[in-house]
Amino acid sequence: MKKHNFGAGPCILPVEVLQKASEAVINLDNSGLSLIEISHRSEPFVKIMDKARSLVRELLDIPASHSVIFLQGGASLQFMMIAQNLIKKGGKAAYTDTGVWSSKAIKEAKLFGNIEVIASSENNDYRNIPKEYIIPSDIDYFHCTSNNTIYGTQMRHFPECPSVMVCDMSSDIFSREIDVNKFDLIYAGAQKNMGTAGATLVIVRDDILGKTGLKIPIMLDYKEHIYRESMNNTPPVFAIYVSMLTLQWVKDKGGVKALEKMNTEKAKLLYDAIDNNKYFKAKVSGQDRSLMNVTFDVENSKSELFELLCSENGIVGIKGHRISGGYRASIYNAMPIESIRVLVDIINKTQ
Amino acid sequence: MKKHNFGAGPCILPVEVLQKASEAVINLDNSGLSLIEISHRSEPFVKIMDKARSLVRELLDIPASHSVIFLQGGASLQFMMIAQNLIKKGGKAAYTDTGVWSSKAIKEAKLFGNIEVIASSENNDYRNIPKEYIIPSDIDYFHCTSNNTIYGTQMRHFPECPSVMVCDMSSDIFSREIDVNKFDLIYAGAQKNMGTAGATLVIVRDDILGKTGLKIPIMLDYKEHIYRESMNNTPPVFAIYVSMLTLQWVKDKGGVKALEKMNTEKAKLLYDAIDNNKYFKAKVSGQDRSLMNVTFDVENSKSELFELLCSENGIVGIKGHRISGGYRASIYNAMPIESIRVLVDIINKTQ
Repeated sequence: MKKHNFGAGPCILPVEVLQKASEAVINLDNSGLSLIEISHRSEPFVKIMDKARSLVRELLDIPASHSVIFLQGGASLQFMMIAQNLIKKGGKAAYTDTGVWSSKAIKEAKLFGNIEVIASSENNDYRNIPKEYIIPSDIDYFHCTSNNTIYGTQMRHFPECPSVMVCDMSSDIFSREIDVNKFDLIYAGAQKNMGTAGATLVIVRDDILGKTGLKIPIMLDYKEHIYRESMNNTPPVFAIYVSMLTLQWVKDKGGVKALEKMNTEKAKLLYDAIDNNKYFKAKVSGQDRSLMNVTFDVENSKSELFELLCSENGIVGIKGHRISGGYRASIYNAMPIESIRVLVDIINKTQ
Repeated sequence: MKKHNFGAGPCILPVEVLQKASEAVINLDNSGLSLIEISHRSEPFVKIMDKARSLVRELLDIPASHSVIFLQGGASLQFMMIAQNLIKKGGKAAYTDTGVWSSKAIKEAKLFGNIEVIASSENNDYRNIPKEYIIPSDIDYFHCTSNNTIYGTQMRHFPECPSVMVCDMSSDIFSREIDVNKFDLIYAGAQKNMGTAGATLVIVRDDILGKTGLKIPIMLDYKEHIYRESMNNTPPVFAIYVSMLTLQWVKDKGGVKALEKMNTEKAKLLYDAIDNNKYFKAKVSGQDRSLMNVTFDVENSKSELFELLCSENGIVGIKGHRISGGYRASIYNAMPIESIRVLVDIINKTQ
């Protein structure tokens, strides 16, 4: 039976990407060698890394002022790297708190400076994106999280920022058009819209770096990774390759603009089905609804039927995060509209 | 033409491992889902992680006093993590300098304390392992590198250590028997004898941790990774899976003891051929010769012929590191003796 994988991450990837990645593990481009047993300094791999970086630049229309690097450690390592690279001695930064992941980012940053939480939706169980707040100008940077996978909220607009603007886009990068000029640092773990776990993308405006006056270990220093073109040490070759393939797939699909249109359509189908069934209730309302993670509850009397229908139709990964309960359909770039239609049918049948 | 991959890393892996890894990228254990698109919290992946860790314990006979964790960032991130986790405020550590990698480890550690280099083979272009040195007892730890890939030297014996003993075993772990009781912390990037790039193994005695009195960011804190069983955040799922498969292969081959016997035999074949050809000269002599990386020079008049024969016979990755020049045959666990015989034939024919 075909599986429809609505998992939140690591999550669904395009079938073509899986096929090519699988082949490369045996024989990379008919070289007679596996992708994972060649030197990262060899021409074939350097080309893969270069292509991955240039696809990022092309797909997001990144200005020359910004560098693109691939790192390891996930967004979680970025939580401390951002602070260590940007907070000056005795400096401070401002954060919005929109859920578990921004809370973790705040906690790590506190080891490096004075962190002010200028807005939070905690009192509303993180079911909305805070909007009425003022970003101070006497800070080293402002940090926000563009999409909150656990709660299903997403920033539709980004605030004007009088300081350095940092954004965790782990779960919605390449899913919609963004103006990179508005941001000084964007980071994203790869395992949602960009590839497989093990690679982390950082897009950073070069001239914000090297200003803290403090020494940074080489593996945590963005400047070093930029200088060494993401090859300070052996990069996670397989994860870089899968990112490159996925970015090529994004390009082949028409780029980020085309995917945004499809993602909007996919999300509308699903939210409409939920809104139109009296036994279902979306956790988030209005413009804060995420196009990537659709969170909802099902009335107790119908949840058994809903889960049975999911199971009978090959739907997996739809249980909500343990923190917020209920259900969550993650519908990243690679989720085909056909799978959404299967889920919509099931929602319609849960009566 | 069959390729014989003598690259130093990322390097050759067992064919069976590549085959299984390739299949899992499409369909993990007939689940209908790819290894790289399932949740790391799902039962199938938790089992993979548990099996990888238990194989490490079994193959190296690790005592209950030590924990086994899988991290990201390669050995290079460990260079600073070791220091940050072990050096007390105002504390110091002692290092031996046996080449580029230990020099890098020393440089990173200096950000955290007073680092004393108690022995170095730099004056001999790192062609030997220093032996006559005394490890001070008033240090937070002693650090050494067991095998030096660039120069082809290897520590045959480890010194008695009056303090905490730390060893970088990136390029020879699982290639020979070691007494883990002698070590307090062992670390290794996966991409030589253990798997593919993107995972790093750390074996650490629990009771040496948490003693610096300094706060450590969560992603750099061994205690946190132990507590969260290497799942503090999304682990590099593919790299962990390949490590698990490779460790299972080691077990199936008879374990580390059996591989040590084979590795000794393989290295002897190659060193003998080099020693018996007057146009060839091994860079390292006697007991310091590495069983993993065989470094040698070829007389100018014969190097063209040697390279031609290599090329005609599918031998790749044999060029020496740019620092030391000449040639290097890396013959890790997965290198079959048949490939060594092909190289030995070529050496014999280079007359």
